[in-house]
Amino acid sequence: MKISFVGIGLMNGSLSLDLQRIYPEAVIQGISRKETTLDRALELGLIHQKGRIDQLTDVDWVFVSIPVAAIASSLPTILDNVGENTMVIDFGSTKAAICEAVKNHPKRNQFLAAHPIAGTEFSGPDAAIPNLYDGKTIILCEAEQTRSDLLPRAEKLLKKLNMVVRQMSSLAHDKHIAYVSHLSHITSFMLGKTVLEKETDQQNIFDMAGSGFASTVRLAKSSPEMWMPIFMQNKHNVLESLDEYISNLNAFKEKLESNAVEDLLTEMKNINKIGTILDRK
Amino acid sequence: MKISFVGIGLMNGSLSLDLQRIYPEAVIQGISRKETTLDRALELGLIHQKGRIDQLTDVDWVFVSIPVAAIASSLPTILDNVGENTMVIDFGSTKAAICEAVKNHPKRNQFLAAHPIAGTEFSGPDAAIPNLYDGKTIILCEAEQTRSDLLPRAEKLLKKLNMVVRQMSSLAHDKHIAYVSHLSHITSFMLGKTVLEKETDQQNIFDMAGSGFASTVRLAKSSPEMWMPIFMQNKHNVLESLDEYISNLNAFKEKLESNAVEDLLTEMKNINKIGTILDRK
Repeated sequence: MKISFVGIGLMNGSLSLDLQRIYPEAVIQGISRKETTLDRALELGLIHQKGRIDQLTDVDWVFVSIPVAAIASSLPTILDNVGENTMVIDFGSTKAAICEAVKNHPKRNQFLAAHPIAGTEFSGPDAAIPNLYDGKTIILCEAEQTRSDLLPRAEKLLKKLNMVVRQMSSLAHDKHIAYVSHLSHITSFMLGKTVLEKETDQQNIFDMAGSGFASTVRLAKSSPEMWMPIFMQNKHNVLESLDEYISNLNAFKEKLESNAVEDLLTEMKNINKIGTILDRK
Repeated sequence: MKISFVGIGLMNGSLSLDLQRIYPEAVIQGISRKETTLDRALELGLIHQKGRIDQLTDVDWVFVSIPVAAIASSLPTILDNVGENTMVIDFGSTKAAICEAVKNHPKRNQFLAAHPIAGTEFSGPDAAIPNLYDGKTIILCEAEQTRSDLLPRAEKLLKKLNMVVRQMSSLAHDKHIAYVSHLSHITSFMLGKTVLEKETDQQNIFDMAGSGFASTVRLAKSSPEMWMPIFMQNKHNVLESLDEYISNLNAFKEKLESNAVEDLLTEMKNINKIGTILDRK
């Protein structure tokens, strides 16, 4: 088995650790714009060799985990270069623009659009950890467009990773994910910004911030190079979710200004139930 | 040694576990509006007996950890009832209104206003955990108004809990804490609200929400009875922080709408540094 990772940071690096465990005989190559990233991935044992985007004919799997704008622009070239039994899977956090980029490609049916709901706020090869995907959900989009002999192969691999597969359209994916992922990255970045602007004495952040603040602002450590293209590609849904969030904040503010204590208590009690929903996980 | 806990939930319950370890001989009593809370605290071993607010003359320490509006209204009565060597400490998340409530009390100098930067999103006696305060910061306000023989006694106890003491005025405390704690509770509650409103199919939250969302929305599980009074007591600072946060969100939105990619990238990279500041902890 031969596996090519396009991009070898948190996502593909972690995947490599798991796949090396599951398929110890696999030959693993990495492809990256940055030579230093490949050297580090070799050092860390995430890949066995450097690969080339124009040498993919004998590769069984190509996993593409790079910023979403780069996925959309690279996928056609990758498909141009693969053999007839190569399966190409992307792990981008948006799906509509990526599916759109290859919808008329002659090898569209060798591609599977996927979004694993897994990750950390860190990036790069050093962020790779084993078992990142264990027990996590992976969303497959437009899977009916993937060749009927290749899709089960992917499903088998995902099962070995102990992932829970869910299918939906790329439009539905992008709409929902704006709310449960993209929006929370923006709220976290803007919280970080607001505090940094106000607390010019950084010692105060250091001393007075508790675990609650750290948790809420954690995503503000995320890679801008990774997230900016996500916000841009999913702009329509992200802006809609932002509008609703800002409108909720304004309503809260007005209620607080007018001492509408009972209203706010009722509202907060209703919101509490998100704990029950998430803790089911 | 005799210790009275007014309120026996997360904060005082956890404190009791630590103090029982440090002072195994201490007699510990609990005072609460709710008989069921006291019964549960007895069952959990958080207190040895039920106490009464009008029987505090022979008590060495009174710790008051109840919603901040109740702290402000109960403190004068508590001070009325203590003996001349009793020390009263509150653990409220606001400090100005609480200090104001007792500023002319004849026993003001037996009181110490404190805010430990510790906690979880859970509440009630069952939320009590050992070592909650270990290594955490505690902010003391207007400590110069506490009797000079009592203050060192408190500092000694806090040292035994391995807490890091920082002093500031109650006004400075309330202003800073609005940004690094109160605001993040509101951003988290409103994120929860926005997602709950949009995702009427709760299965989608369940399946598509990753650890990033869970982290950002964690504080939305917090007790409304505890937090509503905090927002009200610190309304001026909370509204100011909310205004700045909303204004940052609107600016982000406008930049996204106008595809100001470079601007947003630079901004996000600047915000990333909050990670370095917080990770120093």
